Formats: sequence, structure tokens, C-alpha cells
Amino acid sequence: MTKLWHQHLLRVHYKATDQMGVVHHANYISWFEMGRTEMMRHLGIAYREMEDLGLLLPVLDVKVKYHKPAHYDDCVAVYTTLEEFSPIRLTFKYEVRRVSEADFKENESQLMRERTGELLTSGQTVHMWLNKKWRPARLNKTAPEVYEKIKQTLFND
Amino acid sequence: MTKLWHQHLLRVHYKATDQMGVVHHANYISWFEMGRTEMMRHLGIAYREMEDLGLLLPVLDVKVKYHKPAHYDDCVAVYTTLEEFSPIRLTFKYEVRRVSEADFKENESQLMRERTGELLTSGQTVHMWLNKKWRPARLNKTAPEVYEKIKQTLFND
Amino acid sequence: MTKLWHQHLLRVHYKATDQMGVVHHANYISWFEMGRTEMMRHLGIAYREMEDLGLLLPVLDVKVKYHKPAHYDDCVAVYTTLEEFSPIRLTFKYEVRRVSEADFKENESQLMRERTGELLTSGQTVHMWLNKKWRPARLNKTAPEVYEKIKQTLFND
Amino acid sequence: MTKLWHQHLLRVHYKATDQMGVVHHANYISWFEMGRTEMMRHLGIAYREMEDLGLLLPVLDVKVKYHKPAHYDDCVAVYTTLEEFSPIRLTFKYEVRRVSEADFKENESQLMRERTGELLTSGQTVHMWLNKKWRPARLNKTAPEVYEKIKQTLFND
Repeated sequence: MTKLWHQHLLRVHYKATDQMGVVHHANYISWFEMGRTEMMRHLGIAYREMEDLGLLLPVLDVKVKYHKPAHYDDCVAVYTTLEEFSPIRLTFKYEVRRVSEADFKENESQLMRERTGELLTSGQTVHMWLNKKWRPARLNKTAPEVYEKIKQTLFND
Repeated sequence: MTKLWHQHLLRVHYKATDQMGVVHHANYISWFEMGRTEMMRHLGIAYREMEDLGLLLPVLDVKVKYHKPAHYDDCVAVYTTLEEFSPIRLTFKYEVRRVSEADFKENESQLMRERTGELLTSGQTVHMWLNKKWRPARLNKTAPEVYEKIKQTLFND
Repeated sequence: MTKLWHQHLLRVHYKATDQMGVVHHANYISWFEMGRTEMMRHLGIAYREMEDLGLLLPVLDVKVKYHKPAHYDDCVAVYTTLEEFSPIRLTFKYEVRRVSEADFKENESQLMRERTGELLTSGQTVHMWLNKKWRPARLNKTAPEVYEKIKQTLFND
Repeated sequence: MTKLWHQHLLRVHYKATDQMGVVHHANYISWFEMGRTEMMRHLGIAYREMEDLGLLLPVLDVKVKYHKPAHYDDCVAVYTTLEEFSPIRLTFKYEVRRVSEADFKENESQLMRERTGELLTSGQTVHMWLNKKWRPARLNKTAPEVYEKIKQTLFND
């Protein structure tokens, strides 16, 4: 199968810049978080409801490669895909790309096969499902319908 | 009585700057938070323990005046004083001042009558004691020993 | 004349929450910044281009009143209006209101007379035009077309 | 030779927490930044002065592993070491460890062979020297005395 990427568009805010005149590197970690949240929402899964079910999805591992800097007021697309998926762990991959004002206006959350725009950063995060006591939880047991939804939408050939 | 100010020293980090080459104005709100937390700690009151007792101290009101910008790597002193104090509400006042490297090395939390350094911002925050259900709580009932400690240390003539 | 408010819609991200389970109070300062930037953009004025012209618009004064907390994943509308306007200084007023998922989907920047949703915070910021040397600048001299655009769009009866 | 680690102590602030009740994972990126800045300062190199010389040190690559969460008000030690060092590129490694209140009081920047405390996160960042035009710069040409200082302090057997 061809992997599906979710596109989330955002505008670079002043607060995200630093005195080098570019987006401070820590902000991309938050953009990745927005990316995976909005991809889940697109699949009909509100992470907020997962927490209401007693499930937490903390980050175990982050990797980021910085290719080119983003600047204030840029329009960027955060592309997110689910790279690995088991009842216990998830790995998301990300690409942040600069897009034009014209592309930005069509501000819609969508799944796509192609990504466009100049590559700024790429990265990945690894997560583990935990319960409220920070003990490992199996998604297919605690929230079987969510498990099936992710499996079928993102991993069906 | 002369009012006592608590001095907390901090170093300006790169992340706090923006592309104007100065500290982004939102950071001072967090510095005020550090200032009041460290003043409480100096009095022997850990805000962490207040939360363990079921007390929250959310912010009702913030005012900040920006006089001069702070820059990357500056040494600044956050001065905090308790302006108003009742069993229900507190008002803290703050001054952020630039201090020299020499003064910064004596990095000690202390109460003092005088403030030194170039004034960068001044401000105040108003807070209310709430319980875990976000209902008003009276400090002298829920944590009488804390109430007395604050009263005696900061408001004794 | 009736005052016009600009509406900017945003989603509350996880990073904005704190361990009280609500949006940390410092984030509203950044939301106000997004509000005024997007209002300017709606008028055809990119703040990025103002900086390219050599104009800075630092904050002199911030006031925020916190009425109710925003929570993770809430949809909020940041309403911004220009309260005072001279060639030298500007005062913006803001309201942050919680809106429904349904209202959020119509994610469009717009000027309106009415505001809807539950009031969470209100506030204002005062700004001054400066040149790159941090000296006062008169907007009607440095960027007369911007000055006229703001005057005519927001202050015409 | 045994590698030297620099220890920088910091207190976890409320703003750094999220609604899981732990430090939000993006904050460690900023702590790493503080760690490497303070290690440089300990060697007598102010990063601020590097920028005054026209040198920038942007991040090319970040990796973080999250072992255990840090909590509000924890005392943590950020340990930093220089893993690789050439005239063009640097790789820093980091460990964030929870330390006791007692250890925190001895708040001094120091180089050490041993690290203490419970391991919370580990990570690394890769950097490249650039000039103001974002072109590669060779440290031993642009700032030879800085190059020698780093080489002799951290890499002499």
C-alpha cells in the first residue's frame, strides 16, 4: 500500500521566533504534537476522549532533523503518518514543509499520498499507551473500537 | 512597616528571545510565576504542597508594564512582594530588573527592602484560593498554619 | 459607529495546558498576539511587511482578566478590536470565548459586530511604533498607506 | 581520557507541566539548550559573544529518549558533554536527572566525571557553525581562541 499522510496547515507566530530571526527549534516538537492530534481527529478519534477513557499516550522518543529554517508568518504544512502501530506502541513520522499563501487558504485537514512544499524539518516520535497509573495498556483491550478504526483507515491495503 | 521584596535571579535563555532581538513579552508572565513561587518557598511554603492539600491558586488578573527590553543572556532579578492578602485573595506585585554579572553570582533567594538594577518591567497578579472543584476556599480554614506564616513573615510591623 | 471585532478561531493544544488541567495563563498573551496579527492581515496589512519597512510594534502594557478556564482541545475564538489609534500608539482590546465544534468548522477570519461563545478572558494591549533603533516612529509618516487603511476600515462611521 | 560532564541545576516551573501532571516533553529541548550554554559559559565562552562575532550555532539534529517523567517543583540536573568536535560541527550529549533538594542547594556550575540522580531523559544535539548569512563557517578561522579553549579544556587527556 501507499502510505497516507495527514496534512495540517498552520501559520508561524511571532512567539515562535528567536533572535536568529527563525523559528526556535523547540517549536517543531509542538507542531508534531498538533500534527498527530489533528490526524487522529481526522480519523474520528479525539485524543481528549482517549484521556477520558483513562488512556495516556506519552512520548518515549523524539528525533528531529532540521533542513531549513521556517520564518515568521510563513505558512507551513505539518505532514503526519503512522509508521508503526501495535496495541502497545505507535511510531509517527512527520515532515514540516513551507507552503504558499495560496495553498494555505485551502485550510482543510486531509489525508493524501503526496506532500508538497519545501522540506524544513523531518522527524518521528515513539509513543506507548499507558493507563492513569502510568502502567502499560493494550489499546485493543481498553479501546477496541479505536484500535480497529486506526488499523482499518491507515493500514488497509 | 516597610514592604519586603523577594529577589529571585535568573538568566535569560535563547528560547525567550524573539526576532526583534529582545525577550518576548509573554515570558515575563512566567517569570512573575517563578518569582511568587520562590518567595513562597523562601517563607517555607512549597506551592507543590498546597496542591497536595487540595488548594489551587489560579490567576484572576494580570497587569504588566514594559519599560525596557531584556536581552539574551542578561542577568535579571525578579522582585516579588505581597501587596494584598486575605484568606480568600492575594495580590502580588513584581519588578523585573537587569543586574550585573557580578551581582548574579551571588545567586541566593532573599527578602530585602531595597531593589537594585535597571527597571525592565513591573506588574501585578491577583489570585484566589480554590479547592480541587474550582470552588472558593478560605486559606485560614484549609491551611491555617500557612495563613499564619504568610501573615507573620510579610505583614508584621 | 459600532465597533468591529475580528474573529480568529483556534484549537487549544496539549502544550498549552498545565497540571491544573487548564490552559496556563501565559498562553493568552500569545493568543492576543495571534488575534491582532490576524486582524491586521484581514485588513490587508502583514505585520511581517511592517518590519520589512523598518517598523516595530512592541508591547508597552498588557492587562488580562481571567473569567473561566479554557481546556485542552477546546475551540476558542479570539476577538480583537482596535480601541485607540493614533499615528504613535495603538490600543487593542480582546475577548477569548469558547465556541462549539460546529462553529469552529467555519474557520474563517472575519470582522463582525457581535461576539458569541462563553467569555473566558478579556484583555488589552498598548503598543507604540518604533523604528529599528527603538526610537518612536509616526505611522502616518513612515507608512501613510497603512495608516489610512486602518483608519478607514476600522474607524469610519 | 574520561569524558567531562557539565552539571547545570534547575527547578521545574509550573509553566513546564501539562495536564498529564508531568513536564511536557518539548521542555527538555530548552533544558538541553540551557545545558550547553552554561557548559560553554563555564569554559569562559559566552554564546552571546559568539553571535557578536557573527557566528551562529543552529541545531541540525535532535534526539531525545524519555525514561521517566519530571514533575512540578522537582530539582533536576542537566548534564552536558561535548561528544564530537570539529572546526565545523559539534555534537553535544545530555542527561537530565532528578536530584534531591539537598543537592540542589549547592547550585554551582561545574565539570565532573560522575553524574548522580535518577535518569529522566537522555539526548543529543548536532550543530554547525554558520555565519550571519547562514553559510558554513570554520570555528578555527573565525574564532581561533574559542576553538583552542574548547579543544584544550574538554579534549585534553
